[in-house]
Amino acid sequence: MSIEADPSATADPAALDAADPLAPFRRRFVVPDPDLVYLDGNSLGRPPLRAIERVARVATEEWAGQLIRGWDQWLEAPRRVGDLLGVGLLGARPDEVVICDSTTIDFFRLASAALDARPGRRFIVTDRANFPTDRYVLEGLARDRDREIAWLDPDPIDGPSVDDVAAVLAAHQGDVALVTLSHVNYRSAAIADLPAITALAHDAGALALWDLSHSAGSVPVGLAAHGVDLAVGCTYKYLNGGPGAPAYLYVRADLQAELRNPIQGWFGQAEQFEMGQGFRPMPGIGGWLTGTPGMLGLAAAEEGIRVSVEAGIDAIRAKGIALTEYAIALHDAWLAPLGFTLGSPREAARRGSHVSVRRADARDLTRRLIDAGVIPDFRAPDSIRLGLSPLTTSFADVERGIAILARLARSEPAGG
Amino acid sequence: MSIEADPSATADPAALDAADPLAPFRRRFVVPDPDLVYLDGNSLGRPPLRAIERVARVATEEWAGQLIRGWDQWLEAPRRVGDLLGVGLLGARPDEVVICDSTTIDFFRLASAALDARPGRRFIVTDRANFPTDRYVLEGLARDRDREIAWLDPDPIDGPSVDDVAAVLAAHQGDVALVTLSHVNYRSAAIADLPAITALAHDAGALALWDLSHSAGSVPVGLAAHGVDLAVGCTYKYLNGGPGAPAYLYVRADLQAELRNPIQGWFGQAEQFEMGQGFRPMPGIGGWLTGTPGMLGLAAAEEGIRVSVEAGIDAIRAKGIALTEYAIALHDAWLAPLGFTLGSPREAARRGSHVSVRRADARDLTRRLIDAGVIPDFRAPDSIRLGLSPLTTSFADVERGIAILARLARSEPAGG
Repeated sequence: MSIEADPSATADPAALDAADPLAPFRRRFVVPDPDLVYLDGNSLGRPPLRAIERVARVATEEWAGQLIRGWDQWLEAPRRVGDLLGVGLLGARPDEVVICDSTTIDFFRLASAALDARPGRRFIVTDRANFPTDRYVLEGLARDRDREIAWLDPDPIDGPSVDDVAAVLAAHQGDVALVTLSHVNYRSAAIADLPAITALAHDAGALALWDLSHSAGSVPVGLAAHGVDLAVGCTYKYLNGGPGAPAYLYVRADLQAELRNPIQGWFGQAEQFEMGQGFRPMPGIGGWLTGTPGMLGLAAAEEGIRVSVEAGIDAIRAKGIALTEYAIALHDAWLAPLGFTLGSPREAARRGSHVSVRRADARDLTRRLIDAGVIPDFRAPDSIRLGLSPLTTSFADVERGIAILARLARSEPAGG
Repeated sequence: MSIEADPSATADPAALDAADPLAPFRRRFVVPDPDLVYLDGNSLGRPPLRAIERVARVATEEWAGQLIRGWDQWLEAPRRVGDLLGVGLLGARPDEVVICDSTTIDFFRLASAALDARPGRRFIVTDRANFPTDRYVLEGLARDRDREIAWLDPDPIDGPSVDDVAAVLAAHQGDVALVTLSHVNYRSAAIADLPAITALAHDAGALALWDLSHSAGSVPVGLAAHGVDLAVGCTYKYLNGGPGAPAYLYVRADLQAELRNPIQGWFGQAEQFEMGQGFRPMPGIGGWLTGTPGMLGLAAAEEGIRVSVEAGIDAIRAKGIALTEYAIALHDAWLAPLGFTLGSPREAARRGSHVSVRRADARDLTRRLIDAGVIPDFRAPDSIRLGLSPLTTSFADVERGIAILARLARSEPAGG
């Protein structure tokens, strides 16, 4: 954003869009209905044109044309796309990120490996407001490994603070194996203090595992700079990889051989096609692969990731801040008088690229918004989550979406 | 096949194709180069036309057009396609099969759940000739759970016999938790005696887990009829689901609540979108889902499975027998005199839908075959595997492929 463009409630959204250096990126995506106000790109990003073309090419030229010979090129794809994402957007080093499986599977594997690496320690630290799949996986691991979750129960808007984490580490001194949080909270968009919490975990002798699903492609992460041990995330939100696109995992280089992949599949085997006796993991991040990667999904994800790499994470972050500042200004001007409260941090540096607005009838309002051509996400019990995807959401979308929400919120629902 | 058509070495392949009731099915697949002799449909099946169309539709109409609303229909897909496959081809009951993750992940989860269900028992029975990913996963599980693998080391062509399994169960009486084998061996195509071995496992108080990757869509399985406990497999071989298409798992209805999914993800949660505290598995096979399913791959797999369901497993099996009988007749007539030996069972009832032929220079011969437009698979150290996919392989393909192999095998390689 140019510094002239001030996203206040009285700003002209057309002027904000005109001053937006990322505005041209929207033309790289398929937008079949320009009147639809899509504020859920953080649940499922829009398809890049090149992703659609690429999927067609994989299906026809590669699958149909190359048949089994396609694996000559497909074999490298999980690592190639892992590097594109890891180096291009997450601040990892080459050969530290690989695309594979789902976030749930990858999270299970890394959390499990972390517990194995800290056998004498009882506790896993996470928070009650963490994304459900992370919590459910940890509950299963704690039960099966006779460990215990030390739950943080942070402020629902601000998320777990450094002090919260320090306190729980002190309470279980020398007995915490793993600290695992989402970098950006899926509901409030609160950014956890990844550098400080990672350092605290290390001081306590624990490993730190971050879920980047809501930060990858929207907020810089700096995995290497902050010495993060482990991370996972999905590619179908801000990375625009498509419905159920494969996830990724990061294992810091020096931990790749020290930690052990609990699911030893043939794609992680050195000399895979010798099909010999005894699992010997491929050196590097490749040893963390498991089974056969789905190539249609992976190809779409590669194109999605590539668009974000080309835009650059700093430009994306700047626009994400401007979009959310604008949404908050409109909330304050139009929604707060109607009984809404803000469900996201006000400080830009502590907020990812979505904004939650809360009112008791949020579930019903979400339904009415969708009927009116505005698509947000409802998050129980009372949040309407407005996902502002820097490459595809315009300031005009934000203005129109919140104006329609204000109109609906003023009137009673049809059914009473 | 009509009974007039005798697939002997002197048969006219054109006459065999003319008598083949499944011959018209080849037109439902994309075959860009009709001169290519593709004998690797058991590694990666050819794309059905409808799979290509469907993938394009999911990308454009559903992803781009429906955006997040696509999940209204996508959510049911893993169970819908699971029933299509399970009921249509595997002899399962409804709500016993679901499509998800990869074979490696599903095999890990079911093997892990089986060990949990038999906590006092030390041994896992499998064979040295089992598919690598199954062996590697079991090695990891045995190490992490302090269990031990009781390896069968069967005849490489015939695979593990009922007597082999009975002997190992007797040797570890009361101490075997899990018997797990491939239904059809990936190298020799030997069919294991699934009914008898499952019954033996049950008599010994163990659970039986079958890998159906090389039998699904080529051989009837009869999961319910034979009381199989657990099964997994891939959809990219005879089911023509596409490169890295998602896998499936089967859990017999009465075991679905008794056994515990070790990877508790949000797609297995009852009331998933309430995102509440505490994992409570969805009733039925849905509780065995984990993370977000990749919809591009799943859509292609659905169309691949559907073609096989429409052809019918009995007709597919009849053609698979005829194709492999023909290949063996040609092996005996043309290859055996050149020093080849047959690496597959001669008895049709004991053989799946591929045929391995063996000679010491198989690796080099495979390379030369590919250069000559015939695509088989090499399997170390000395096997050329000819995959005869009943819906897409013609008798003419078999004749041409083996004729070219015989010609190459007669001449010295260029470099040697």
